[in-house]
Parts: sequence; C-alpha cells; structure tokens
Amino acid sequence: MIQITVIQIDNYGPWTVTPNPRRESDLQALQSRLYADLNLMFGAHKGLVFYTRFDNLIAITNGIDLITHKRIQESIRNRYPFTVSMAIASAETPYEAQKLATETLQEYGSAQDENRKEVLDVANELVVDGYVQIAHIDINNITGTFTDIVSAYDTYINVNKVKLYLMEELLKHKALLFFIGGDNFMAPSNGMDEEDFLKIFDKIKNKYNIELKAGIGIGKTAEDASNLADIGLEKIRMKLVNKNICVLRQEDIIEQNLSTKKLCELQR
Amino acid sequence: MIQITVIQIDNYGPWTVTPNPRRESDLQALQSRLYADLNLMFGAHKGLVFYTRFDNLIAITNGIDLITHKRIQESIRNRYPFTVSMAIASAETPYEAQKLATETLQEYGSAQDENRKEVLDVANELVVDGYVQIAHIDINNITGTFTDIVSAYDTYINVNKVKLYLMEELLKHKALLFFIGGDNFMAPSNGMDEEDFLKIFDKIKNKYNIELKAGIGIGKTAEDASNLADIGLEKIRMKLVNKNICVLRQEDIIEQNLSTKKLCELQR
Amino acid sequence: MIQITVIQIDNYGPWTVTPNPRRESDLQALQSRLYADLNLMFGAHKGLVFYTRFDNLIAITNGIDLITHKRIQESIRNRYPFTVSMAIASAETPYEAQKLATETLQEYGSAQDENRKEVLDVANELVVDGYVQIAHIDINNITGTFTDIVSAYDTYINVNKVKLYLMEELLKHKALLFFIGGDNFMAPSNGMDEEDFLKIFDKIKNKYNIELKAGIGIGKTAEDASNLADIGLEKIRMKLVNKNICVLRQEDIIEQNLSTKKLCELQR
Amino acid sequence: MIQITVIQIDNYGPWTVTPNPRRESDLQALQSRLYADLNLMFGAHKGLVFYTRFDNLIAITNGIDLITHKRIQESIRNRYPFTVSMAIASAETPYEAQKLATETLQEYGSAQDENRKEVLDVANELVVDGYVQIAHIDINNITGTFTDIVSAYDTYINVNKVKLYLMEELLKHKALLFFIGGDNFMAPSNGMDEEDFLKIFDKIKNKYNIELKAGIGIGKTAEDASNLADIGLEKIRMKLVNKNICVLRQEDIIEQNLSTKKLCELQR
Repeated sequence: MIQITVIQIDNYGPWTVTPNPRRESDLQALQSRLYADLNLMFGAHKGLVFYTRFDNLIAITNGIDLITHKRIQESIRNRYPFTVSMAIASAETPYEAQKLATETLQEYGSAQDENRKEVLDVANELVVDGYVQIAHIDINNITGTFTDIVSAYDTYINVNKVKLYLMEELLKHKALLFFIGGDNFMAPSNGMDEEDFLKIFDKIKNKYNIELKAGIGIGKTAEDASNLADIGLEKIRMKLVNKNICVLRQEDIIEQNLSTKKLCELQR
Repeated sequence: MIQITVIQIDNYGPWTVTPNPRRESDLQALQSRLYADLNLMFGAHKGLVFYTRFDNLIAITNGIDLITHKRIQESIRNRYPFTVSMAIASAETPYEAQKLATETLQEYGSAQDENRKEVLDVANELVVDGYVQIAHIDINNITGTFTDIVSAYDTYINVNKVKLYLMEELLKHKALLFFIGGDNFMAPSNGMDEEDFLKIFDKIKNKYNIELKAGIGIGKTAEDASNLADIGLEKIRMKLVNKNICVLRQEDIIEQNLSTKKLCELQR
Repeated sequence: MIQITVIQIDNYGPWTVTPNPRRESDLQALQSRLYADLNLMFGAHKGLVFYTRFDNLIAITNGIDLITHKRIQESIRNRYPFTVSMAIASAETPYEAQKLATETLQEYGSAQDENRKEVLDVANELVVDGYVQIAHIDINNITGTFTDIVSAYDTYINVNKVKLYLMEELLKHKALLFFIGGDNFMAPSNGMDEEDFLKIFDKIKNKYNIELKAGIGIGKTAEDASNLADIGLEKIRMKLVNKNICVLRQEDIIEQNLSTKKLCELQR
Repeated sequence: MIQITVIQIDNYGPWTVTPNPRRESDLQALQSRLYADLNLMFGAHKGLVFYTRFDNLIAITNGIDLITHKRIQESIRNRYPFTVSMAIASAETPYEAQKLATETLQEYGSAQDENRKEVLDVANELVVDGYVQIAHIDINNITGTFTDIVSAYDTYINVNKVKLYLMEELLKHKALLFFIGGDNFMAPSNGMDEEDFLKIFDKIKNKYNIELKAGIGIGKTAEDASNLADIGLEKIRMKLVNKNICVLRQEDIIEQNLSTKKLCELQR
C-alpha cells in the first residue's frame, strides 16, 4: 500500500487576479517557494512532493501521520498569503490512491469555493505496513545527444515528448510520472516489475530513438525508495549492471544484511 | 526583436550524485528556489524566467543589460552550492533567439565540462528598440470541467497533453510555450497574430474537446507584455470581449492615450 | 534538563572574502535564509532556533535525536555553499548546556580550521525526560510609547538597551536571552521562578522606565514551551491576569485536565 | 546626503496572535525571509537593508527611485501574508534621515492602525548627487580570543556589549550601527572621519579590552560604499595598512584613476 496526499491551494486562481492580475515573476517565485517548502517539511519526515500543477501538488507520504500533516498545513497558513487543503489516501497503486484523495477533497466543495478552507481529511486510512516503489528514470547521455548539440528549447520539447509518452504508458499500470529536472523523472509505481519498464523503454527507443534507464527503489518511505532508486541508477551509469534497470529492495538489504554494493551486480 | 537569456547550472548532474546521490526532496527544494530567485532578480528589472528543465532555464530579458546579468550571476555564486552560465541573444522570434543563445553557450564547452564555469556572453547584440509579445493562455473552466470532477493526476495529464500539442503547434511559428501553473501557459510569440492562435485553439478543441483562450500583450519588456496579457485574459473571462483572444499593445495605449478599458471591448 | 544544540557554519569568515569580499546584501540574504531553514527543519520536530550571531546559532532541541540532527546537517550541505557543524548537550540550565556543547565543538578544532567540517557530536547525553522553560518577554505598549512617537532607530536602541540588561541579569540565573523581533524576547530559563523575573523587571522599570511582562511556558519541547509562553503573554495583554507574569505548565494542563483558560486567571 | 528608507510591516503584532499565537519557528522563518527578500530586491538596485527589529527595517537607498520602491512593496504584497509601508528621506546624516522618514510614516497613523496600509511616501526629496559612507567594523581575532575558547553565548554577549557601546558612541555623531553577523558591524556614518572612529575604538579597548578595526567606504550607493569598506577591511587584515582604519573613496579611485591596491597602503 502506498499513501498519497493531494495538496491544493485554496481558491488560488481568483486570488492571483484580485484586485488586479499580480506580476507573473512574483507568482512564479511564490509557487516555486511553496513547492520548496513543502518538500523540506514533508522531507523532514521522509516524504516527497511533486510540483504537478503547482497549485495542485501530489506527495508520497507513507509513514507521515495526520498531526504532522496538520502542522505543515499550519506552517503554510503562518507564512503564505493563502491556505492549503490536503486529503490523504492509501491504495495498492499510486493512481488509485491519488484518485481517492482527490475525491475526498472534492466532497468538501470546489477548489474555487471561497468557503472551503484548510480541509484536512483521510479518504480511507493511513498506511501502517505498506511500501513505496519509485523508479528514477533518466535519458541516456542527454548531455552528449541533446544539451550540448541542439537548442535549449529543442531539448526541452524532446524531454516533454518522452514525459507525456511515459505518463500514458505508466498510467496503464496505474503508476504516476513526474518530471524532476534535467532529464530525470520519478515514477511512483507500486506493483510494476522490471519487464513492464523494459517494454516501455523499448517502445520509446523505437518511437523516438531515445534510450532510457531506471533505478527502482522499494522501501518503507518515499525517501528510502528514492534513495535506493538513485543508487540503482548510479550502478547503471557506472556500468556495474548489464541492463537498463536495477531494482533495490530495502527489505532484502536489511533482512539478508546485504550491502547495496552486492545488489544488481549479481544480476549480470 | 526579442532578447532571450539561456541560463545553465554549471556541471550540475555530476554534483547531484557526488559523493553519493543527494536526497531528492533537497534537490527539488534547491532547484525551485533557484528558479524563484532568478524570477525575483530578473523580475526586479522587468524580465521573466521560465523553469524549463530547472537546470536549463529560459528568460526573456529585453531591456536588461550585461552588467545586470553579471550581478545576478554573482548573486547565485554567493548563495548557492553551484554557479550558473548565461548566454544572451536577440532575434525576430523567440525560438531563433534561444537557439543563438544556446549555440554561444555550447561554444564554451559541455554543460558537464568541469572547467567551464560562469560563462557570460552575448551571441549577437542586446536589443535596444525591440518588443516582447507574450500570450497568456488558459483552459476555459478547468475547475468545473476537470479539477472538481476528475482526479488530480487525470487533470494533470490532460494539461500535459494540451501543453505538448501547443508546444508543437507554436514551434511552427517559432514561438515557445511554458507551463506556469494551474491551467496556465505563457507563449513568447513575437510575430504571431490572432488568427494563428485561433486556428491552433480550434485544432485543440477538435482533438481534445478542450477550449482555450488567450490574452496577448505586446510591450517593451517581458513584464509589460505579461501584464497586458493578463489584463486581456481577464477581459475575456469577464466576457467583455466576444471572442477567445484579446490583444493589447503598450504602444497603442501610450500613443493614443487609451485606457486598457477601451481596448478589446471595441472588437465586439 | 534542557537540550541545547550549538550550530556553527564551518570556516565561514574566510569564505565570505574569497577570492574577494562578497556583496553584503547577498551575505545578509544567505545568512537569514539559513536561519529560516534551520527553524523550519528543527521546527518540524518541535525545536526552536535563535539566530544569535548568524554564523553561530543556538537551538533548543529537547526530543530531537541524533539522526534528525544528521539529516538537517545533510540538507544544509545539499543546498548551501557551506557546511555546518553541530554539538548537542544537556544540563540543568540553558547556559551550562550551551557551554558543554561549545566545548565539544572546540575540541574538534577552530571554527576557522579548514579541515574541521560537519562535526556532529553529543557532549554528554540526549535528554529523555527533561523539560524546557521559555519566557516570552515583551515591552508594555511599545507601539504607543516608542514606535509611533520616536524615530525607528531610537526605538531600536532602546530595545537593545533592554536586551543587554536582560542578558546580563538572566545570566546570573544561567538563563539565556534572544531577541525575536519587534519588542519581543525569548529566554530559555529552566530553573528560574516568577519572583526572579519580577525582580529583574522592577530593576528595568527603575533604570529605564520601561515596563516588561512575560508569559512563561514549561513543556516537553521548545514548541510546547513557547506556545504556552505565548498564551500566557496573551492573557496578560488581555488583562485576564493581575500581574505581569503568567506561568503555564504543560504537565498541569495534562494531569489535571485543565484548560489553559482556567490557568493564571486563578492567580488573581 | 544619504537616503534612508524606513520599512514597517503593517499591523504586524496583532496578526502574529490572530486568532491564536502563531508558532514561533514559523514567525522566525517568515521574518528572516522577508529580510532576505528585501536585501535581494533592494540589492538588485545597489541598496542595502538592515534587519533592525525585523518588523521595522532600515535601508540605505541612494540611487533608488520611488517607482522601484513601489515595485518592491507590491512584490511583498504578492508573496507575503502581510503588507509593508515605506517612507524615504534624505539628510546630511543617517540619523536625521531615518528620523525624517519615521516621522513621515507616523503622520499616516499608528503602526498598529489596521486602516493604515502600504503607505509609500517621501519626507523631503530623493538624493540625486549624494554619497554613502559605510564603516565595516569587526573585532580583531574574535575566533582566537572568543569563538574557539569561550562558550557560544559568552561570545555573543560580548558582541552585544560592543554593539551597544558602539551604537551609543556613534549616535553622538548621528551615525547608525547594525550587526551583520559574526563579529561584524556596519555603520552608515556620513560625516564622520578617521579620528572619530579611532577615538571610539580606543575607548572600547580601554573599557572591554577588545580591539576593533574598520574599513570605511565612501561611494555613490550603499553597495559601492560597502564594497569599498570590505576591501579596506581586508587590507587591514592582511596588514597592508599600519593602523586599524582604511578609508577608500570611490571618487578618488575614479578621478585619479587609482587602483584600490594603491590606496591605504600609501598611508603607512
């Protein structure tokens, strides 16, 4: 079971144009700082937040209780010119969890209902003994094949093509995908296996001639999973693994007292 | 002529995994704060920055001179664990300008060359008497048709479809497109006219059954243009205009001593 | 027992002038953001940080374990152009605790030793069953008697006089004092009682003709204590208490199932 | 003539306790970020801000016009849960300038008048051809004599003693003094000469056995002056100057085409 929190700025759209449209550079600074703060505050408890649409954000929050959510919600109220609502849900897949969370939020009224403020609710229950699977996906040698030879915007548009294609393919597995900068994506993907990813990467190779690789981490929290995913990706980059996927399970490492050094390399 | 600055974090990828992969929530906080700061610092001089890939950013900088760029570059060096390189270029279209700027940056070496640090150069010349055209595009009633009824991620994926489609269509006109949060996009689009946008909006209506509208601002700086674009969009939202486009020119407003109240409404 | 963490930027002085002195507005922004971040990160675990000298900060950290300290230390390393060292100590009084913590830090070498980086150590032991006492002190009607009638700097100098006098008097009780903005001070003051404060306030009344009041909170963590201190101060401001001190104990409130409404008022 | 801006958060005190006292770690984060942002935004135009009481700040703003102040005021409104008022004044000395600015602010009503919002006014006139003198003062070898051998708080209290003494002595010359972190102070001090400082340093040497030194910069803007002050201080630290003061004038450097390398050393 994965636990997802959907975070929504209350009645944000109308605020941005009241009494007149606010300066765009200020709004961009405001939104991106909110995102930074949410990552620091959820990150303090091993959660991870994705910016999504900036006014609607999706966080992985396994291990984070309701009171901690409430404290984060208060901290935003204390420091920002707006408030946020949050709904938490758990499910077998990330897609289902965010869907349940959204539905709970929607029950309280519209995102632009000025009376709906600081909702905090749990759709079903908090995860006690679940796990998080995150794939950290990147593009092979993007610096050599894009950044250093085509224009900044052409690289960007290619990254967006890969992103949308990945989003659509992963959705079939009820997994999510978020861009995290550079040529990097993170996919909360409980339930997917190596083969699922390799097939998608093949399709992208055929369609766009772009090669992908992924470290996949499976852990108790978003931080545990993403750390392991990063280590897996590094192993592939360093050619310690003979394929484009390396899966690392926190459970294996602890139970079998394995060092991450021994993992994935064994798969050669 | 529009002036574009391409900003690149120096040798960022390797830094993120040295000596070990850094915590993802920290990297997200770091990158989004850099973006916020760049918007505040360029915004102080009426520029506007788009996050693009977070480690490669694109800014509209008409009216901002080289020494101001240098001061911003120093301020980043003084407060961040990395440095940034910048190249400035001007052209008739935003696409050409960013291309020239990227090429100048590439001449200095790879984005991951550890010896290439704090490049600051101008591809051709700074714009003296140019203009910026920005279209602020949004989705009609996204709150009622998406946010309040489908899941957060389904809304997000739809926004991404529209985004990629817009990127591809606008590229034919050598215009750029950036997501700025919610259901909002900004398109630096010097040279495009109303009809060009209406045709693209029609295609999207047919393909995705999603209706778009746009305020288009034309001004001396990115801030002037985006402010006018915002006002134009508000006029459409308030149904003061009888179509989905409203173009406002700073020049007209000043020369003919017009209030923005009189503009676009005349087009009924 | 109170637990104090002394935080020190590693080799900061030399960095600020290498290779040339860095712009002062940047350094001020950098230092104050570090302070903000430390408060958010320790605050996420109910700690509280005081800016002190900005490059040497003092935090109250009852209830915060070593691994959490380490995670905060890493987060600074991941996002700032410098690293920080930390030493933790516990004692009956705040003064003794910070002294022990400082000594532990000093054992590792000079603050300007370029080889001493990211020290993290515990002087004696982490507090398990301790408490924090914080007095939130402010000046009666500073707005009416200073802010609105004398110059900004004259008010400031008066606040500094009160501050230094309070520091010296409280030191006799091995309590600390920090300015927290406006006309507000916070004094970690385990072991001091009401009378101790009233005597000091009398002296200040006689010496400077400035009247002080204080809410005193006693709780498990810095946050618990400071929240209770705030509530106590509000009771005095609202004239629900017939003297300039109101002490609230978390223990009383929990054990006797009292509402804070019933407390201090009883002391009339 | 020096130009000073007094900045005041509107009706801040009441906000911090409405409806209940807000968490102290949040308020500290909020206030110090406001300070950081003001330094970045005024710094973008070569100004410099001192935190003073955090809710009342003092900035040196030579060369910064009214419209730039207004843009900064709007940017705060767009991103913070409160607004700020500002008054600008010029005078021969910093003390007089801040006094005039405060009086202008006071004419609009109390700092805690809920109807007084976003005042922006000029007491007399903006400075056109003035100058800024800033002394950057520090304590000789504080690391060796304090930081590395006494407790963090004992060092802090000593810094506060020096600070208050300097404030009182400088006030006699209508100069201001602000702590800027570590063992560093900045004194806007138009009109004071080397001898004035040396006499004060002698008194402090006698009273506290603490030796001070100062680089003094005189320039068109706060940034020019503080940069020169920093360079002067470095010259003393490197023992290129045979006394504890080094004065650098931007005018001399430009008019006589001197390098800063040649200055102060000549005074040996």
